Amino acid sequence: MTADRNAGKSIESLFPHFITQKDLPILVSSNDAIFSDVDAVLCCLPHGTTQEIIKALPKGLKIVDLSADFRLRDTSEYEEWYGQPHRAPDLQEEAIYGLTEIFREEIKNARLVANPGCYPTSIQLPLVPLIKSKLIEYKNIIIDSKSGASGAGRGAKVANLYTELTEGIMSYGVTRHRHVPEIEQGLSHAAHSKVTVSFTPHLMPMSRGMQSTIYVEMAPGVTAEDLYQQLKVSYEDEEFVKLLEKGVVPRTHDVRGSNYCYMNVFPDRISGRAIIISVIDNLVKGASGQALQNLNIMMGFPENTGLGYLPLFP
Amino acid sequence: MTADRNAGKSIESLFPHFITQKDLPILVSSNDAIFSDVDAVLCCLPHGTTQEIIKALPKGLKIVDLSADFRLRDTSEYEEWYGQPHRAPDLQEEAIYGLTEIFREEIKNARLVANPGCYPTSIQLPLVPLIKSKLIEYKNIIIDSKSGASGAGRGAKVANLYTELTEGIMSYGVTRHRHVPEIEQGLSHAAHSKVTVSFTPHLMPMSRGMQSTIYVEMAPGVTAEDLYQQLKVSYEDEEFVKLLEKGVVPRTHDVRGSNYCYMNVFPDRISGRAIIISVIDNLVKGASGQALQNLNIMMGFPENTGLGYLPLFP
Amino acid sequence: MTADRNAGKSIESLFPHFITQKDLPILVSSNDAIFSDVDAVLCCLPHGTTQEIIKALPKGLKIVDLSADFRLRDTSEYEEWYGQPHRAPDLQEEAIYGLTEIFREEIKNARLVANPGCYPTSIQLPLVPLIKSKLIEYKNIIIDSKSGASGAGRGAKVANLYTELTEGIMSYGVTRHRHVPEIEQGLSHAAHSKVTVSFTPHLMPMSRGMQSTIYVEMAPGVTAEDLYQQLKVSYEDEEFVKLLEKGVVPRTHDVRGSNYCYMNVFPDRISGRAIIISVIDNLVKGASGQALQNLNIMMGFPENTGLGYLPLFP
Amino acid sequence: MTADRNAGKSIESLFPHFITQKDLPILVSSNDAIFSDVDAVLCCLPHGTTQEIIKALPKGLKIVDLSADFRLRDTSEYEEWYGQPHRAPDLQEEAIYGLTEIFREEIKNARLVANPGCYPTSIQLPLVPLIKSKLIEYKNIIIDSKSGASGAGRGAKVANLYTELTEGIMSYGVTRHRHVPEIEQGLSHAAHSKVTVSFTPHLMPMSRGMQSTIYVEMAPGVTAEDLYQQLKVSYEDEEFVKLLEKGVVPRTHDVRGSNYCYMNVFPDRISGRAIIISVIDNLVKGASGQALQNLNIMMGFPENTGLGYLPLFP
Repeated sequence: MTADRNAGKSIESLFPHFITQKDLPILVSSNDAIFSDVDAVLCCLPHGTTQEIIKALPKGLKIVDLSADFRLRDTSEYEEWYGQPHRAPDLQEEAIYGLTEIFREEIKNARLVANPGCYPTSIQLPLVPLIKSKLIEYKNIIIDSKSGASGAGRGAKVANLYTELTEGIMSYGVTRHRHVPEIEQGLSHAAHSKVTVSFTPHLMPMSRGMQSTIYVEMAPGVTAEDLYQQLKVSYEDEEFVKLLEKGVVPRTHDVRGSNYCYMNVFPDRISGRAIIISVIDNLVKGASGQALQNLNIMMGFPENTGLGYLPLFP
Repeated sequence: MTADRNAGKSIESLFPHFITQKDLPILVSSNDAIFSDVDAVLCCLPHGTTQEIIKALPKGLKIVDLSADFRLRDTSEYEEWYGQPHRAPDLQEEAIYGLTEIFREEIKNARLVANPGCYPTSIQLPLVPLIKSKLIEYKNIIIDSKSGASGAGRGAKVANLYTELTEGIMSYGVTRHRHVPEIEQGLSHAAHSKVTVSFTPHLMPMSRGMQSTIYVEMAPGVTAEDLYQQLKVSYEDEEFVKLLEKGVVPRTHDVRGSNYCYMNVFPDRISGRAIIISVIDNLVKGASGQALQNLNIMMGFPENTGLGYLPLFP
Repeated sequence: MTADRNAGKSIESLFPHFITQKDLPILVSSNDAIFSDVDAVLCCLPHGTTQEIIKALPKGLKIVDLSADFRLRDTSEYEEWYGQPHRAPDLQEEAIYGLTEIFREEIKNARLVANPGCYPTSIQLPLVPLIKSKLIEYKNIIIDSKSGASGAGRGAKVANLYTELTEGIMSYGVTRHRHVPEIEQGLSHAAHSKVTVSFTPHLMPMSRGMQSTIYVEMAPGVTAEDLYQQLKVSYEDEEFVKLLEKGVVPRTHDVRGSNYCYMNVFPDRISGRAIIISVIDNLVKGASGQALQNLNIMMGFPENTGLGYLPLFP
Repeated sequence: MTADRNAGKSIESLFPHFITQKDLPILVSSNDAIFSDVDAVLCCLPHGTTQEIIKALPKGLKIVDLSADFRLRDTSEYEEWYGQPHRAPDLQEEAIYGLTEIFREEIKNARLVANPGCYPTSIQLPLVPLIKSKLIEYKNIIIDSKSGASGAGRGAKVANLYTELTEGIMSYGVTRHRHVPEIEQGLSHAAHSKVTVSFTPHLMPMSRGMQSTIYVEMAPGVTAEDLYQQLKVSYEDEEFVKLLEKGVVPRTHDVRGSNYCYMNVFPDRISGRAIIISVIDNLVKGASGQALQNLNIMMGFPENTGLGYLPLFP
């Protein structure tokens, strides 16, 4: 387990909720890490720093990268949204996008998996099967997403202080959030044509949890029931993606601390439209949980290894 | 000041934050209230009980009713959404809808004002001027609203316990919330034609505050800038409705505890669409504050009497 | 799994975070429960209703009772604090008090274990060893405890609404909380003489978590270091009770969702005094977790069976 | 209104809840401030930087300093707790400690008032009259205080992030908080002898609000009723300090956003002891509100000028 400015410290000194665990390693500088005994790497570095570090790793390592650095297939799009040229375009070509339930087969043989962003996970899981099956229109997809504050990371910023966030909500990054190209890439791939979405994230006074409320136009003659049946078929054998009973509203509480995605479909008041709601824990299915799920697949382990945690409620 | 089961108690015994105020009245049963010295009444009773009580009040009283009982002009629509026939259809004809900035002239001479719901206030304030000026399409108006828990009232329900709400969010009343007919009535009136909206409320882990994120299609050739300019013209002389500087996101924090509505307009990524955000304190501009604003107008007082409270931040 | 008004429903319809689990039983009325195939019972009924129900259960069952009904050895004290005579005094004599780390040997052979209250657990775990070793004075023990709102249960009361609790704190039950006799019973037993404590609980705007800040006078010549060393000896082999490194403050965050108790000792500014801090999750080590720990011991299972959950942070 | 790195900006760009106010000044660098038209200054700079700045101000200005720089009469104590020598000992001699209700007469003629800390305000208001009247013992005063997160200021620190604080509590600065010498100074002054207290602050998951739960030994023969009567006499004519009805628990909710201090006294279970609870809003009576109260007195204005805000509940 590597660290930068915390190298030399124990994990439990940084995260006291681990002090009960035995034989925890001391954090080492990534320069001092010895990779000869390592089979796989979970790479959790900031966007923009990851490409060169992964380039320098031994070629035999399996890698799941949790940054955005290898998510966008089009490196010019990466440059546009992240403000710097891509530094490892060869690796980008090799990288598999790790939305597990959609790309499981590709992940099995992948060496480098780009773990999806939290918003894109909550949005693509319901939309990709509906787009592939041509049940919804590709235009005018309106996505109103809500995220807990942990999505902003642990950086020391005034905007993320307790006093700034508690008891209030706000939109942010309206039309300009960096997850937009990742969402559109996934939906366009499913549609075999360019999809442009309306995506507005909102910051919630809670630590964990993410909901995407998605407003769609259905294809002519299609009903919300058709959407429901399609999602049922798509996910009925999945352990971590659950379509709820009809009429039951997915709640972030019910997935908190777990790798589950709950979703459901509702007919809209406006004829021909439907409302899709999906919820995840942004830190688990939206980040580390899906990363572990992907790593399990890459290593040939049971896919749910280490992911047995049930949601914590209340 | 009247009460039902708390008649005979002092206000400060129920709300200890008032103990510092002198000469607070003892709560009396509404049956024991003497109306001969009373000029005006703020009626804060549950939906369904208000109609008969107001019918029995002296005719000379000015009344602002905070329930939903006189908000819907069409009494059959009332029956449909509230599950019981309207018991005072004559009064309904007389009632003026108290969305202050839109119906100020009518309120001036009103005897009975139906104070708007919180969601309808946050939604109609930005949309009515845009619809009247034909800048947006009347179809496919998608409204994703978020409310603090005080919107659910002070009733003792498991669903509203601290442990059920903290650190989680959820949609509720999807397509079936009782504010739908009130919103559609207001927008249809502005449009001179029937408007059907998509409206999804969400419950937030916060006490006060409401945001409506509204996704609209603009009329052909219209830009978000046109919408911004229209709202600027509509509200530049208003004390309690504020269009923010371009690009500034309205936050519920910035209106908490006050009668203000902040709003702004953003161009969407999808060509021809715009995103409108409005925020209020659901208990003030969304309820008691607007009621007082209306009463001030009815009584000929300065409109901001008693409404000088600034937002409380943090 | 039994229920009262929810008999006939599935667990996952009441607690949707369980829908992912297979073969969950349907809730049955306790009258319809068939005990012939049952080895043990976790009894989670309200105080006052438990005694007669347990009296009626087959004698061969192992029982962990999470109510207060069998915690007080002195049935007259039960009557004084709970306002009704004890209805099963014979069972009371048989009941073992389930503070696991203190009474493990007795629990091994117990048929009926009275699971401790949350406050008493957080208080007795640090104090009992210090009292037994005569390191602290038995008089003037001042306990200032803080609990999350889940300690109040899931009953629909106005006082426990989100809007009443968020962003505020309050003492309650000052000197009269029902956990007082349980705490004093445990400390008096350790001291072999009557101990009377000052105990003030406080309600916190959080769902889970409990901290007891305990202010004690040390015996003549004793230092905080002596207290630390005693607790180290008492708990160094315990899996679920952890004395932190010197100077490290226990935080409720670091035990949330887990069965751990973290504690530490600090010298006070006032000479001869010390400050002891202990934290638990009131719903786990303070309730269901300790119950399971006790049941494991009674059944001869490894003590940590089903208790491997790590704390959830953030 | 001056600023450092924000000089040149408008207030409302930093605090959007002020955009509704007219004629707000642009922030100027303190070097560019013109003091010739200024009568009084509220100085809100960090501890350690204030002394030299105040030294350089025109001598005719009335000053209320909200930092800790002039609170400690003993400059060697300042050096011990703040880690640097006092740079304006002459001004220190002149400074009046601004605990309004206790030192009102001295404040009337003061030129420089050192505004008290939040914890010391909540602690001294109840304790000073009880010590002066010799109703409580000076030894073994145990103070368990709880503060909202705004007490930590607006600095960007990881420890104050939303995700670090929500849904958890923790003690901090055990026996070493910088408010200790200020508290002991005030109590020692009232006692005419050195008082050493036990003081443990706790950080709460809320933005505003502070409670001190104070555990005291009463003088021989004194009862909690005597304490109650003394506080009643001391504060019955005070507008901002309120002794509640007997048995009513002060709650931070009931003073939030206001300059009030609520307090009450309870007999302890341990004979001869009492529990005193006081609550304030740490940002108002604990900081800016008391500063304004002091300035009003210094300027000869009605003491409640600008302080008419009622608590905001819920």
